[in-house]
Amino acid sequence: MSSSRIWTAAMLVIGDEILSGRTQDKNVAALAKWLNVQGIRLAEVRIVPDVLGEIADAANELRGRNDYLFTTGGIGPTHDDITVDAIAHALGVEVVVHPRARAMLERYYGDKGGLTEARLRMARVPDGGELIENKYSGAPGIRHGSVFIMAGIPHIAAQMMDALTGQLEGGDPVLSESIGCWTPESEVSEILGAAEKAHEDCQIGSYPFFREGRVGANFVVRSTDGDALAACLAELTEKLEAAGHDVTQGGI
Amino acid sequence: MSSSRIWTAAMLVIGDEILSGRTQDKNVAALAKWLNVQGIRLAEVRIVPDVLGEIADAANELRGRNDYLFTTGGIGPTHDDITVDAIAHALGVEVVVHPRARAMLERYYGDKGGLTEARLRMARVPDGGELIENKYSGAPGIRHGSVFIMAGIPHIAAQMMDALTGQLEGGDPVLSESIGCWTPESEVSEILGAAEKAHEDCQIGSYPFFREGRVGANFVVRSTDGDALAACLAELTEKLEAAGHDVTQGGI
Repeated sequence: MSSSRIWTAAMLVIGDEILSGRTQDKNVAALAKWLNVQGIRLAEVRIVPDVLGEIADAANELRGRNDYLFTTGGIGPTHDDITVDAIAHALGVEVVVHPRARAMLERYYGDKGGLTEARLRMARVPDGGELIENKYSGAPGIRHGSVFIMAGIPHIAAQMMDALTGQLEGGDPVLSESIGCWTPESEVSEILGAAEKAHEDCQIGSYPFFREGRVGANFVVRSTDGDALAACLAELTEKLEAAGHDVTQGGI
Repeated sequence: MSSSRIWTAAMLVIGDEILSGRTQDKNVAALAKWLNVQGIRLAEVRIVPDVLGEIADAANELRGRNDYLFTTGGIGPTHDDITVDAIAHALGVEVVVHPRARAMLERYYGDKGGLTEARLRMARVPDGGELIENKYSGAPGIRHGSVFIMAGIPHIAAQMMDALTGQLEGGDPVLSESIGCWTPESEVSEILGAAEKAHEDCQIGSYPFFREGRVGANFVVRSTDGDALAACLAELTEKLEAAGHDVTQGGI
């Protein structure tokens, strides 16, 4: 495996509750950070409603051009939980009850009223799917080839990421370092652009903010190459200081 | 205008900082709620990196199948701010300096070092674009037909939404009411499914939670028809109570 190969993932966030504004998504940022550590870049995200055709179409488009696809949401026991059906449709396979998922749910619900028909829905997987376990709920996530079906509730999704840590092939992790200045980004944009041009293994992001009535910006340098990152950061710091700006290492 | 026509919007979130997990997006939820009040449904969202071709392709796909397209991010003065160029490319028009935007920036930066070349970037619009003003920064948003280019910083984006309130043609606003039960959603999923089937003008969402060591769920009924919503909510409440569940109006 070459270290220069870039591995990418797409994410499909499923749920009317996100599109209605009722729920503030937190899984995009969490998955993005976790993927960085796995050496996988989150390349694109889509948020779609609880509509089978839209979920399936988006899943096929996204998995076709990325190494991995992660979905969040829609794997509970209610009528609006249709992710498994939609992904099975996208993959062209049947939905089947996974025997181990069924056993897990039977154990989990044994003293909570037993395994009803609604709860049994959570043991359904696209045929060929493997389970991603989590300790917070009876319902597992599902892996089917390059597709990972995860919970929408952030702490359960995080458990599923934990379970997958180190299991996925990736490239070099993306490293990042921040510096900050109490200066409008518009005053230093030429310095930033020149530094990025001079260090082609690095990307520089500029993130302005208003705090305590003052204007400032953080500049984040990202690279998979630690030496290149250090060189870019040093040059950027030097140029900013030479232009009269105080630079805070680590960002403000 | 028929009240049964459903108006839809798509949203395009632009920025490596969201895909890297560095920044937690807040604009999706804010735009979704604001659109609901305008009688416009947020139908889909995409998050793309700071890459001109990807922004332009997504913009064309999204505006082609929705009444409106809103973008957030990438309208500042630095090298990674390429939204205006990407949207102009998508629309097939030139990028021009808008005279009034230029005048606004000159006024804003008059006592802050003047209008540098970098700052002048923020006066650029796709040819034919009109300005969306905001009082927090010198840089305006841009409207070009059905496309709205807004800031990434949440409080500036919110100002731009304020400026647009009541300006967009929409349908009936979506109304919603919540009820909650301290019960696992898996115990009531049949009641929910039956209630949604019996009230076809309503959607019912089920949102489980774990709090204080207990399991519960909120059920949100949405409709553009207030009477239909009330009838659905009443029936759902009655069925849940008949099955032995305490119902909290307004949600938990």
